[in-house]
Amino acid sequence: MTRISTGVAGLDEMLGGGFLANKIILVRGGPGTGKTIFSLQFIAEGAKKGEKGIYLTLEEPIESVRTAAANLGFDLEDLEKKKVLKLIDGSQLVYKFSDESKTNYNVPKPVISQIANQIMIEAECLGAKRLAVDPITSAIIHQRFPTDKRLEILELMKSLRKIKCTSLITSESASPSEDEFFVEEYLADGVIILAQTLHNFVITKTVRVEKMRGTRHDDQPRKYEIGDKGLIVYNTEPVIV
Amino acid sequence: MTRISTGVAGLDEMLGGGFLANKIILVRGGPGTGKTIFSLQFIAEGAKKGEKGIYLTLEEPIESVRTAAANLGFDLEDLEKKKVLKLIDGSQLVYKFSDESKTNYNVPKPVISQIANQIMIEAECLGAKRLAVDPITSAIIHQRFPTDKRLEILELMKSLRKIKCTSLITSESASPSEDEFFVEEYLADGVIILAQTLHNFVITKTVRVEKMRGTRHDDQPRKYEIGDKGLIVYNTEPVIV
Amino acid sequence: MTRISTGVAGLDEMLGGGFLANKIILVRGGPGTGKTIFSLQFIAEGAKKGEKGIYLTLEEPIESVRTAAANLGFDLEDLEKKKVLKLIDGSQLVYKFSDESKTNYNVPKPVISQIANQIMIEAECLGAKRLAVDPITSAIIHQRFPTDKRLEILELMKSLRKIKCTSLITSESASPSEDEFFVEEYLADGVIILAQTLHNFVITKTVRVEKMRGTRHDDQPRKYEIGDKGLIVYNTEPVIV
Amino acid sequence: MTRISTGVAGLDEMLGGGFLANKIILVRGGPGTGKTIFSLQFIAEGAKKGEKGIYLTLEEPIESVRTAAANLGFDLEDLEKKKVLKLIDGSQLVYKFSDESKTNYNVPKPVISQIANQIMIEAECLGAKRLAVDPITSAIIHQRFPTDKRLEILELMKSLRKIKCTSLITSESASPSEDEFFVEEYLADGVIILAQTLHNFVITKTVRVEKMRGTRHDDQPRKYEIGDKGLIVYNTEPVIV
Amino acid sequence: MTRISTGVAGLDEMLGGGFLANKIILVRGGPGTGKTIFSLQFIAEGAKKGEKGIYLTLEEPIESVRTAAANLGFDLEDLEKKKVLKLIDGSQLVYKFSDESKTNYNVPKPVISQIANQIMIEAECLGAKRLAVDPITSAIIHQRFPTDKRLEILELMKSLRKIKCTSLITSESASPSEDEFFVEEYLADGVIILAQTLHNFVITKTVRVEKMRGTRHDDQPRKYEIGDKGLIVYNTEPVIV
Amino acid sequence: MTRISTGVAGLDEMLGGGFLANKIILVRGGPGTGKTIFSLQFIAEGAKKGEKGIYLTLEEPIESVRTAAANLGFDLEDLEKKKVLKLIDGSQLVYKFSDESKTNYNVPKPVISQIANQIMIEAECLGAKRLAVDPITSAIIHQRFPTDKRLEILELMKSLRKIKCTSLITSESASPSEDEFFVEEYLADGVIILAQTLHNFVITKTVRVEKMRGTRHDDQPRKYEIGDKGLIVYNTEPVIV
Repeated sequence: MTRISTGVAGLDEMLGGGFLANKIILVRGGPGTGKTIFSLQFIAEGAKKGEKGIYLTLEEPIESVRTAAANLGFDLEDLEKKKVLKLIDGSQLVYKFSDESKTNYNVPKPVISQIANQIMIEAECLGAKRLAVDPITSAIIHQRFPTDKRLEILELMKSLRKIKCTSLITSESASPSEDEFFVEEYLADGVIILAQTLHNFVITKTVRVEKMRGTRHDDQPRKYEIGDKGLIVYNTEPVIV
Repeated sequence: MTRISTGVAGLDEMLGGGFLANKIILVRGGPGTGKTIFSLQFIAEGAKKGEKGIYLTLEEPIESVRTAAANLGFDLEDLEKKKVLKLIDGSQLVYKFSDESKTNYNVPKPVISQIANQIMIEAECLGAKRLAVDPITSAIIHQRFPTDKRLEILELMKSLRKIKCTSLITSESASPSEDEFFVEEYLADGVIILAQTLHNFVITKTVRVEKMRGTRHDDQPRKYEIGDKGLIVYNTEPVIV
Repeated sequence: MTRISTGVAGLDEMLGGGFLANKIILVRGGPGTGKTIFSLQFIAEGAKKGEKGIYLTLEEPIESVRTAAANLGFDLEDLEKKKVLKLIDGSQLVYKFSDESKTNYNVPKPVISQIANQIMIEAECLGAKRLAVDPITSAIIHQRFPTDKRLEILELMKSLRKIKCTSLITSESASPSEDEFFVEEYLADGVIILAQTLHNFVITKTVRVEKMRGTRHDDQPRKYEIGDKGLIVYNTEPVIV
Repeated sequence: MTRISTGVAGLDEMLGGGFLANKIILVRGGPGTGKTIFSLQFIAEGAKKGEKGIYLTLEEPIESVRTAAANLGFDLEDLEKKKVLKLIDGSQLVYKFSDESKTNYNVPKPVISQIANQIMIEAECLGAKRLAVDPITSAIIHQRFPTDKRLEILELMKSLRKIKCTSLITSESASPSEDEFFVEEYLADGVIILAQTLHNFVITKTVRVEKMRGTRHDDQPRKYEIGDKGLIVYNTEPVIV
Repeated sequence: MTRISTGVAGLDEMLGGGFLANKIILVRGGPGTGKTIFSLQFIAEGAKKGEKGIYLTLEEPIESVRTAAANLGFDLEDLEKKKVLKLIDGSQLVYKFSDESKTNYNVPKPVISQIANQIMIEAECLGAKRLAVDPITSAIIHQRFPTDKRLEILELMKSLRKIKCTSLITSESASPSEDEFFVEEYLADGVIILAQTLHNFVITKTVRVEKMRGTRHDDQPRKYEIGDKGLIVYNTEPVIV
Repeated sequence: MTRISTGVAGLDEMLGGGFLANKIILVRGGPGTGKTIFSLQFIAEGAKKGEKGIYLTLEEPIESVRTAAANLGFDLEDLEKKKVLKLIDGSQLVYKFSDESKTNYNVPKPVISQIANQIMIEAECLGAKRLAVDPITSAIIHQRFPTDKRLEILELMKSLRKIKCTSLITSESASPSEDEFFVEEYLADGVIILAQTLHNFVITKTVRVEKMRGTRHDDQPRKYEIGDKGLIVYNTEPVIV
């Protein structure tokens, strides 16, 4: 089984060497947990090894993504020029839904299909081996009912299953209440949880591999920090509180 | 009463020798608790003893199931050739619902009936003694209302009652809130709960036999691990936290 | 006031000698708490004393009920032949609703009325003194709204009020959240709660008499076990944790 | 201000001498807290002093009420003969709603108005000084929405305001969740809470005067027991747990 | 900035001298926290200083208000004769809604507008400097949806903004669950919370100034008691539990 | 990257020098946490340095805002005269919705668009570098469903993205329950949480930088106070409880 390095120091060890190739991994976490930084590390790690990648941003404008990458020492523009990276700007998607919902409440919106098609075409053109979708949340905000949110996600996941990429999808969700059901988590091959726990007025950041099909992994929560080079996972020590 | 070994080391002892023959057992657990591995151990244990089995996968593609089985030392393809195992691929079912729901909101979908019919026919053809449905969750995602989810499950359970198999059904659900009602748990003859408890940044895995009609059993939670050979239950010691 | 022995060792003492004759008692508990075993002990205790009984099973097939009874040392078939017991099989009821709900969403279903009528006729024919309905839950699964569930239960309770039996009804419900309202508990003359408490990975089983109109009772929770002879209540000692 | 003794040993002291005359008092408590016994003590206390009373039972059949009273040493039949007590049987009301709801979902039901009218007429005829409605819960079970439940209660309370009685109304409700609103509690002049607290497998019964307009009162919870003579409140000692 | 004494001993100090003139203050608390007594102290304090006041009662009948005031040593009738106080009786409002809701579900009810108009006219006639509305809760009970409740309150607040009074509004609400939103609290210039905390079977009463625009204040909870003269706040000591 | 001082003593240090220019920052907090004071400090800090600003008040009347500013030592009228500040009064907006909702339930209301347009025009005219919207909450109160609330906020955020300002938006929301989703928090570039924690009858105020895209920051909660000069953050010491 081919292993795909995550780009996050300390995380590959937790996974037994990295992600399995061609799987879909979901990274779930609340605001400020570093999901975008994780996505960038994942794509940049591939670029460093010559693995072509696609980065679809659904929230931050593409310029902010470039700046965030530069802060971490990654020159995305250079990678784009070298044709090892394709940035797709979906940051206006969330506002687009807003316009449509106002004028038309009933017609199913094919926006997800369009995005999904574009990803598939670009991935084939480029010969991409890595894909990041950051975050999937923007694609479902405009839907009123949980079932419709799920259908949107099902649609996107079905498309991602058709391309030969290791895909990393982020999702902005706090840890769910007991009776909630996350279809994205259910459909993904692997799930990584980024958590911030507030206890006694102190924040602790932990990463946990909740699910990783087809491989054994460290299933304990581990502390992480967000530093100059991005996320660093401390996987050999217990989380001290 | 005929006893059917679960295939999980340490679990038969908790059940007084295994499942009772021809019963329906539900295995409930959240992501990463090893439900697919459990299902594979159950089917492989039968094959080892010459008991024919059917494995219906409703989530993972059939190739992933074969790989996961190989990781545990089970050669499913070989078993299929020897006609002691029939794999049914329902992994696209969840995406199929997605398509239908978009074009047609009101017509009842007979998909469950089709699957149920196929299971009954295959079970009779093969002379199956064991059946695994992994997981039932995919069959209800597309339904909007709890009552409709329940009717789908009722439909499937009614069919399973008609065949002479010991059936193991998995369900991806975290532990329910107090006012929730799981019809699959209610209708099954036995219920096994796989839980992951996060306390002080440490994960503990426990298995508990919640219900097992017609036989006495150990009703205390027991620790388990997922190792190279699948789930191992430590049934002679208390769970230490 | 005539006292009716419960058949459960240790419980009569908590009730001051048993149930009051001709009352309706609800036994509520989650899966695996022994509600069916309790019902069987109640009916068998009557049969032992020559009090005729009716056992309506709404969940387990009648054969499973006979097997479960045999496990406890009760030969139901023999009791049926001696005309001291009548078993009514309503185990397919829950699947019947499923069929109807698919084809017809709006018409009120008179199934409960039919069952209620049958109970009344059989009770009169037999001259029954004891009645067990196990569990009432199956009669309400198919209803979408709490108010409709309540109306179904009201209907059944109204019928039970008309016959001269001591009735024991079981209900599969975990302990309710604070704002929930159980109409079956409200309408019954007595309520017994079977609880399983999971604390520090240990399960403790307790029985509590929540309500018992017209008689004083021990209102403290007491530990119980499910053994070879059925439920045994330890009523003279505090529950130790 | 005229004081009306509650009939419950120890409670008058908490209230500074009893209820204020002509007020409406709500007694709220879950199953098994002794609401009916409290109501009977309240009415019997009046009868002892020659204050005429009306007892409207909306849940227990009138015969059960007589038996329960006899258990406490009160001979209701005798009081009825002496024309100091009028029992009104509304115990079938809850089943009546059930019939109507099945055949007619939309028409507002005037049943509460009828009951309210009957109370007003009987109270005037008898010259009643005390009124017990036990419990108000039956009057609202059949309503689907909280607002409709509230309108039913408003209707009844408006009628009670028109008669010159001290009225005691019971309500079967566990302690409310934080965002719930009890209109009966809001409209009553006084509210008494009967609570059963389950802690470490031990039940503790406490009574608390939550609200009592126009008079000062002990606002601390006090322990009570249900004995041969009915409720006894231990108002001079702290609740020990 | 003109300061308006609250009339509650110890509370002015917490507020830096009293309320700011012409502001709207909300006093929120559950049953039995003394909201009516607070309102009376506020109005009576004004009367003592020659500041004219209006008291709108939306729950207790006007006679009960007079009695409650007399208990505190305030002779409202005398103040009315001297034309320093105007009592408006809205205590039947809540029952009025009840009638209308039964016959007419759909038409917006202009009752709040009428009340609001009456307040504005009376305030101008009298030259009122203080206004008490006790409690606003009655004005929203009949509304089915949170948004409609909010619109009613918005309507009333808009009117109160137009008159030159310091207004005190009470609201019967327990402390909100985390996702609830109180529009009356949002729109008011100041919010005071009266709380009763039940811990270990002991009730503790505390008052807290949650918000007070335009002035600094003690933001810590302080213990209070309800005595012969009304509420007394102990603002110089910590709350001991 | 240009840094924009927050105007709050101690907060710039937590952010590595202030906000990043042209970003949208959300400040979330319950009643009494000082959101308006924060907004004023932010605008006044700019004015002091010659950076022009716009202050849109959606809750407090403009005169109250001027008074609150004067209390902090800021003379807004003078700044307006000098053309470094433009105050926009949207305080009647919330009441306006109230009127419209009563007469017209179905037509989408274009009020947000109008406000958004006005902001864009004024910002361009003035050459504003700072913008405060205090609070966004008023713009969504009148909407019935979460999705519609989100669409309103999306609309406003889209407009703010088009102007070259550092924008500070306040939001009156207590900390969310686990399954809630704040779209304003999701769309903002940075999120600052102002919290009041009530523990053992003591209130503790803390500020936490939950998210701040494109820059590293102190992610721990820090204590703050509201004093004569506005908010002061104690960022070098742990919060002691």
